[in-house]
This record gives sequence, C-alpha cells and structure tokens, in this order.
Amino acid sequence: MVKVAVDAMGGDYAPAAVVAGVIEALSKSDVFVYLVGQESKVRQELKKYKFDPSRIGVVHADEIVEMHESPANAIRKKKNSSMNIGINLLKDGMADAFFSAGNTGGVVCAATLKLGLLETIERPGIAIVMPNRKGVSLIIDAGANIDPKPLHLVQYGIMGSAYFEQILGKTNPAVGLLNVGEEESKGTDFVKETYQLLEQSPVNFIGNVEGKDIFSGQCDVIVCDGFVGNVTLKVAESIAETMSFFLKQELGSSLLGRIAYLLARGCFKNFKKKIDYSEYGGAPLLGVDGVVIIGHGRSSAKAVMNAILFAKKEVERNVNQNIMEKAKKITARV
Amino acid sequence: MVKVAVDAMGGDYAPAAVVAGVIEALSKSDVFVYLVGQESKVRQELKKYKFDPSRIGVVHADEIVEMHESPANAIRKKKNSSMNIGINLLKDGMADAFFSAGNTGGVVCAATLKLGLLETIERPGIAIVMPNRKGVSLIIDAGANIDPKPLHLVQYGIMGSAYFEQILGKTNPAVGLLNVGEEESKGTDFVKETYQLLEQSPVNFIGNVEGKDIFSGQCDVIVCDGFVGNVTLKVAESIAETMSFFLKQELGSSLLGRIAYLLARGCFKNFKKKIDYSEYGGAPLLGVDGVVIIGHGRSSAKAVMNAILFAKKEVERNVNQNIMEKAKKITARV
Repeated sequence: MVKVAVDAMGGDYAPAAVVAGVIEALSKSDVFVYLVGQESKVRQELKKYKFDPSRIGVVHADEIVEMHESPANAIRKKKNSSMNIGINLLKDGMADAFFSAGNTGGVVCAATLKLGLLETIERPGIAIVMPNRKGVSLIIDAGANIDPKPLHLVQYGIMGSAYFEQILGKTNPAVGLLNVGEEESKGTDFVKETYQLLEQSPVNFIGNVEGKDIFSGQCDVIVCDGFVGNVTLKVAESIAETMSFFLKQELGSSLLGRIAYLLARGCFKNFKKKIDYSEYGGAPLLGVDGVVIIGHGRSSAKAVMNAILFAKKEVERNVNQNIMEKAKKITARV
Repeated sequence: MVKVAVDAMGGDYAPAAVVAGVIEALSKSDVFVYLVGQESKVRQELKKYKFDPSRIGVVHADEIVEMHESPANAIRKKKNSSMNIGINLLKDGMADAFFSAGNTGGVVCAATLKLGLLETIERPGIAIVMPNRKGVSLIIDAGANIDPKPLHLVQYGIMGSAYFEQILGKTNPAVGLLNVGEEESKGTDFVKETYQLLEQSPVNFIGNVEGKDIFSGQCDVIVCDGFVGNVTLKVAESIAETMSFFLKQELGSSLLGRIAYLLARGCFKNFKKKIDYSEYGGAPLLGVDGVVIIGHGRSSAKAVMNAILFAKKEVERNVNQNIMEKAKKITARV
C-alpha cells in the first residue's frame, strides 16, 4: 500500500481541512497516511470521523513553519516542524510521498536539503498542468525558485519535457519560453540569456511564447521563473471563480439568462471543474529525489483528498525514475 | 477638434486595419486624424472608403519600426519612422495625442526621448484598467519598463493613484504590490525593497497582493514590473477567448446546453465584451508629457477605432495636468 506523509499543520485551514481530506482519501483509495503535526490537535480532529485506524499513523511534530516565515531560517531552526519530520519520513523510506499545503518555500527548502536533487538538476521546480484549447500544457516553475539562473530554466525544460512525455505519452513535446513578445530580441537580459541556452539545449525549443499562449495550446511545456509562474498560475486560478461570477451575474440579469442557467447547470459545473484548482489538489515538485506534492495555501478538504490521490499515482508511476530515464534520452540528443 | 496622430504602420494588420479603424472612428466622433506612414500604401487603403477629406491628414514617413527590432536602436536610427514622425507631431503641437499598435518598446522610447517625462517621474508605465468583481482595478506597468528599479514602482503607485482618482472619482485608492504571497517576507529582493519604499511613500499602500487579487477587487491600483504585468495582461486577455471556447464546447455537447446557449446569446456576448481587449483598444502610457496610447500588436479595426476614441477622451479630460495636480496632492501627504 502506498504510504503518504501529510503535513497536518500546512495550509490556511489546517489541521481541520487536512484531516477531513485525508479521511476522504482513505475512503476513495487504498492508501496509508501519516498525519504529521501536533498530536493532540490532530487526534481531536480525527475524533470527528470513523476510519480504519490501521491506515492512519499520527506522527507528532511540535513546531509549525508559518506562512510568513523565511523558509530557509524556519527549516533550519524548527527541526521539529511538521515539514521537517514529514520529509524525514520520506527520506527514511517510511513514506513513499510527502504532501504539504503549507509555506511553499519551506517545503522546497526542506525537500532540497533532506532528499537531495536528481542527477544534473540544480534547482527543483513546481510543475502545473493547465487546460488549453488543444489539451493541456505544463508550466514549470510555478513558484519553487523565484530568483533562478538561466541554466535552471533549461533544466526545467528538460524535466518538464520528460514529465510531459511520461504523463501524457507525447514524445518530444514543444517547449516555449514565457516572454513579453515572440521575437528573439524581446525581454530582460535574463530571458534573452535563457533563450540562447534553450536553443543550444536538447529540448524541442520553439522559441518565446506569450501569456496568451498558455491557453492557446501552442506548445506543451512552458518554462519561466517561479515569480512569473506563480503570478500566472494565480491569475489563471482565479479565472474560474471570477468568470463564473461574471457569467452568473450576466445570466441572472435576464429571465432568458436564468432559464438558460438552470437548463445548462451541468455544463456550467463541468466548465468550472475544468479549471478548478481543488480538482487537481497539488502539484509535483520536480527535481527532488522523492515524490513531493505541494498544495495551495487555501487547500480545502477536497483539494487535500485529490492531492493525496495524486501523490499515490505519482508513486505508482515511478515518476522520478521515469523522469531520469527520459531526461537522459533527451540529453543524449545533443 | 481633437487631433490624433496615428501610426499607420504599427500593428500586425497595418496599414489595412489601422486605416479601417480610423475611418470608423471618424464616423463615430468629431476627431481629426493624422495618418502617419508610407504615403502610397496609406492612400491605397484610403481609396477603399468614403470619408471627409478635411478630417484626415496623411503624413509621409519612409521607415517602419518592426516588431522584432531593438527599440532604442530603431528609434535612434530610423529618424523617418512613422513612430518618430508621429510623436514629433505631438511634440510640435500639431496633434493632441498619438496612438500606435506597433513595437511597444519603440513607442515608449520615442515618447520618452522626444516628449520628456512628467515632473518627478523617471520612467513611464502602461496602465491597464481591468474588470474585477467589485468594479475595476488598474495595473501599472503592463510592459513599458521590463527591468525597473524599486523606485519606479513607487512612481507607478503615485501616477496610478492619481489616474485612478481622476477616471473613477475614487480618492485615496488602495495600492497593492503584485507578489507571490501576502506576507511581507515573500518575494524577490526587488519586490521586498519595493515593499519598503511603498510603505514609506504617500500612497494608500495595503501591502502585497497575489495574482488572484487582480480579479477579486481587493485593491484599486496594482503595481508590478513591466515583465510580470505584460504576462499577466496577456494571460487575462486570453481568458475571454479561451473561456468562451470552453463554455461553447461544454454547452455544445448537450441538447440542453445548446438550447441554453441560444436563449442566452446576448448574455454570453455581454460577458465576452466585458473582458475583450478590443473594446478598450489602447492603454495610456502614463508619465510621458503628452497623451500617448499604446495598442495591442494584434489590433483589429475595432480596436484601433476604440483607441482613437479613448485618445480623444484622454485629451478632453486633460489627463496629464490632472495627474500632475493629483500626484502633487498625494506627495504632499508625507
């Protein structure tokens, strides 16, 4: 049975939403979960539910890495934080994956320090799969590394290509560099240098892409620095909510609109589902030597549940081994 | 009559779409337009339409600043480009405003060099008004300055506040700094330094905001560097298109959905209009000493028309004088 260590204290609604999500995940899939956090609080939440006690282990962790803390400091000083102890379970082979909806920088830092990085990778990146007109595209990095070097983006291109190949079965995916214009001359010195490196790299680099291309499906893998990626992701995430809001407002303003809404409620739901973050639950932190899934700070119980199911899938498809093999094949092309 | 100089050669569909848009604008409003560009090409396009010749002047400009060119070089070398000659018309008082859908960096460079900057402003910024749940918010900078210094973002905050006050009548608008998290500790060194400066500045600074807050209406003015702002804008722009696409796809997949779509066609149109870039047409380049409106590279005739009407409005409301006065009042608060 796949074992997932879950940071019970991570996220804005922790531990309540985390524990609720774990219970839901147990009912949906055969997974074992370590709930890592302040034991009394976790047990108090667990009291609310009926569950098979042989499938949950509570691992006490005194401290919490708060959202406002500087990641490197917090991880170094709070040795007994739920993040550090959770990642240790993965490192020691007790767990197969780790999930946290807490301080993203903290997870990245703890995972990098304790698990180490895959061969040839210098920085991990958060990979997000987004729907587009033709299918999906993968954005990397969505916030693990907000101040990267151009070479890190090339590594994201390789990892992203390997991951895209693996999960979507498309070989030689097209890689684009997120920029303010399509022309090679566009952008900051940072993106210009990245452009040159990507051109010399073994990935199937198609050049610069713009913000609009994320949804057009013009390429499969989009690389960017974690600052831009994070802002982009959050803009896109809020789309579903705000568009639904505008549409409801518009439809609600006329009788025909209200009838239409009632008739097509299922369609609107599917539409919303397509771009609802909590349907995915979490994003993989690619590049660290272990399956680490990062959740949204605002993770609901549903998001936590989906993240745990996703973590299990990642373990079962042997994600890192596959990335390594595919990345080697890609690199051998040069 | 307000006189607008229009770069006839700027934009992916120039000069055809530009000339078509100008003709439409003439029919909608009492404006005079200088069409600046290669005379024979412009006149050939004009032949397609009937119009009042006393309201259009064709000003010949030999050269074109192409999309892929380095702005500073192109503006310096191509003295006879439509951009340079168009901005000169504004500088010499022949025109009241200038519009171009060409190379954004080129327009920014020519406007800065020739028109100069407003007092206390060191860099111009593109201001974009976006719909949100509570009304609208203003994003500055959407791409004039992709590698700014923290102080420039403070100036954007002041200009943005003054502009927001002027066009929306809301005094003391709330200013947020676009970042990867709400906490003060989040972000790159650049945004952390900007945060400190904004806190000491006279604007009504409410702290960091995230990508999602652009649509939530949590604040009125959002400042960011032009790289992030440009990507954000283009992501948001593509929303309307892609969401309409998803929604149509979803509604088209069932009979009830198809009926609903037919019933509420008007609602869907209004919904799309709300976030359709071409409805606005252009965005002001704030901080230069003259009314300069920047259009999308993909500007359609409709977008050009709306941009010209918008330019006229900006001239009539005496935008720069007002910004200066309001900025002085804001600055006096310290």
